[in-house]
Amino acid sequence: MTAAFARLWAEIAPIGRDRKGGYLRYALTDPELTLRDWFRNQADRRDMTVTDDGNGNLFAWWGAQWGRGTVLTGSHFDSVPHGGGYDGPLGIVSAFLAVDRLREQGFTPGRPIGVAAFVDEEGGRFGLPCLGSRLLSGVIDPGKAAALCDRDGVTFGEALGSRPAGALPSLSARVSAVVELHIEQGRVLDVPVGVASAIWPHGRWRLDFTGHGDHAGTTRMADRHDPMLTFASTVLAANEEAWLAGAHATIARVTVEPNATNAIPSLVRGWLDARAADTPTMERLVEAVVKRAVERAGQDGTQVVVEPESVSPEVAFDTSLAARLSALLGDAPILPTGAGHDAGVLSAHVPTAMLFVRNPTGVSHSPAEYASDEDCTAGVEALATVLRELT
Amino acid sequence: MTAAFARLWAEIAPIGRDRKGGYLRYALTDPELTLRDWFRNQADRRDMTVTDDGNGNLFAWWGAQWGRGTVLTGSHFDSVPHGGGYDGPLGIVSAFLAVDRLREQGFTPGRPIGVAAFVDEEGGRFGLPCLGSRLLSGVIDPGKAAALCDRDGVTFGEALGSRPAGALPSLSARVSAVVELHIEQGRVLDVPVGVASAIWPHGRWRLDFTGHGDHAGTTRMADRHDPMLTFASTVLAANEEAWLAGAHATIARVTVEPNATNAIPSLVRGWLDARAADTPTMERLVEAVVKRAVERAGQDGTQVVVEPESVSPEVAFDTSLAARLSALLGDAPILPTGAGHDAGVLSAHVPTAMLFVRNPTGVSHSPAEYASDEDCTAGVEALATVLRELT
Repeated sequence: MTAAFARLWAEIAPIGRDRKGGYLRYALTDPELTLRDWFRNQADRRDMTVTDDGNGNLFAWWGAQWGRGTVLTGSHFDSVPHGGGYDGPLGIVSAFLAVDRLREQGFTPGRPIGVAAFVDEEGGRFGLPCLGSRLLSGVIDPGKAAALCDRDGVTFGEALGSRPAGALPSLSARVSAVVELHIEQGRVLDVPVGVASAIWPHGRWRLDFTGHGDHAGTTRMADRHDPMLTFASTVLAANEEAWLAGAHATIARVTVEPNATNAIPSLVRGWLDARAADTPTMERLVEAVVKRAVERAGQDGTQVVVEPESVSPEVAFDTSLAARLSALLGDAPILPTGAGHDAGVLSAHVPTAMLFVRNPTGVSHSPAEYASDEDCTAGVEALATVLRELT
Repeated sequence: MTAAFARLWAEIAPIGRDRKGGYLRYALTDPELTLRDWFRNQADRRDMTVTDDGNGNLFAWWGAQWGRGTVLTGSHFDSVPHGGGYDGPLGIVSAFLAVDRLREQGFTPGRPIGVAAFVDEEGGRFGLPCLGSRLLSGVIDPGKAAALCDRDGVTFGEALGSRPAGALPSLSARVSAVVELHIEQGRVLDVPVGVASAIWPHGRWRLDFTGHGDHAGTTRMADRHDPMLTFASTVLAANEEAWLAGAHATIARVTVEPNATNAIPSLVRGWLDARAADTPTMERLVEAVVKRAVERAGQDGTQVVVEPESVSPEVAFDTSLAARLSALLGDAPILPTGAGHDAGVLSAHVPTAMLFVRNPTGVSHSPAEYASDEDCTAGVEALATVLRELT
């Protein structure tokens, strides 16, 4: 069993890997397209038909496509820049192996099973996380999604080759359950497999700090309107406010114009990632950070404009489904997560559950992200058990 | 006279201009190569031979190439990213117009005049300011210069098409004086033309802040080693220490790995630009900033490594030459500057002077950089007067 996982995992491990072991698998770029080819090939090997929902999401079918009672599983191929290899692909590889396991057991599902590969779950290319599942479930307008730009100015519509199709008609009538398997992204899980209870509310806000571009060598300190100072102060404020709130806040991405050593910037753009156990706490946290940014801008003679890019309320997964799966898996622990997932988006429309595979260091979004072959194999076994139960 | 300036200026104004009026004229990229073609064409129109010193610097000659007593003038074409159009090109355009002015006056110089276009004065492409004049005067090893990389990994040697030739033999024996005309970069000059007394000591230091890449959503605040915090704290420390020292310090350039909204960075790289009226003050300033960076790194669980990229001591221009030119120009004011220049590098080898043209707002390294056609024309007249005197 462990060998089966290791063998399939080794097929995709080199795709999009950088020399430090991190991954560049942006949605619809070469490495991710290679993974999609691999997906079609895996489906083919298993006599599973592949369909495309017109939104960039792929589905491999065991049973009738979108037939009544469909159970969806799978995850996403795309990575954060230089991220780990497990976040996403583990759910897809495990889904194919769970299908193998059920067939070895001579099981024939009474409901269709669809293995999904969702597009741009990280938002690493087009800026909006869970783009594919948002389109499928109709929570984003296809025209708005088509216009989202990557860092090179390529739109999602251009990358996709067409305007996205948008919501699948009667999604909630067709699908009876969604189960996404994912590597855990914290240090909470101390057995191989757990079940998700909830996703913290979370969001990303873009902060544009503008000032006056000028010569760094000749401009007197008193004459400056340097937006880098306001940015820096806000980075520290976000950290402090998160500690005070018992929540998470991070400014990890920044772009600077002109970004030259000897030129005071005219624009510094930062992105705030904020998450908390409940929505009011997250909202108070963001308000506090913005208040401090605006205060500091007054001192620096700069301006701040805040634009929410995506804000997701708390997701409580289907409680009875989680309890049922936990019992099925020998009282597997039930735990919340701070990370967003396609399953979180879909849970508003369909009974949804997540399985987590143990991550011994808790590190994620980094080349150090890791799960053992043994734990991954336990994940496959758990997913097979769950699919057997639900179909 | 004003019309002559405006006409020649209009020829180069569109080259490399972005839609906000700033310039992208990195050394040896298309716009700068176009300006070099324009330079050859201007020389041709004036029957001036163009030579290349094998370092990427061009020279248009009135008189014998590198003949005894040569007087060099000119400046550079390259800009900081999205910088102004005057910083550099004004010195070259003015040099050609000064030649015209002397010829209109029927003047024949007794010594050769060389109009220079130096390569990568800003260090905007290869990271080391005054690269061309450093090579010409032998203060940088050609092999080291050849290996300098731009942001895309192209080396200076590759961009140049060969290993740089290095120092011109007997530069100080051949050249009797250097006069660089430049737009002023502060608000000090309140008449059209002034003469430089000195360049503040200045330098740039690269600061690598390293931590642990991790998931921004799931990593507890207490488990983080976030180098963005150390960077932000150092940005503010540099500003505070510069105020305290009566000097200038700026962190205006930053790169982040992986620079993703939902991933705590593993590396934040910032560049410190520091300048002061004297070298001990600058050194104390940098020491104070680094000390505070290291202290904060201890608190954040991160590391800081500091690498000086270029440090230039104070340049005092030839005092008697400055006094002579000031008198010649009707007691033009004599003023220092915080900005580095090729003239500063060459002043260690040859009697060197600079003429400044008034900048009404003092803004530089920004699209708002500006000098009036009248003041620029006064600059041409002053340069012609100086060249007549020195040749």
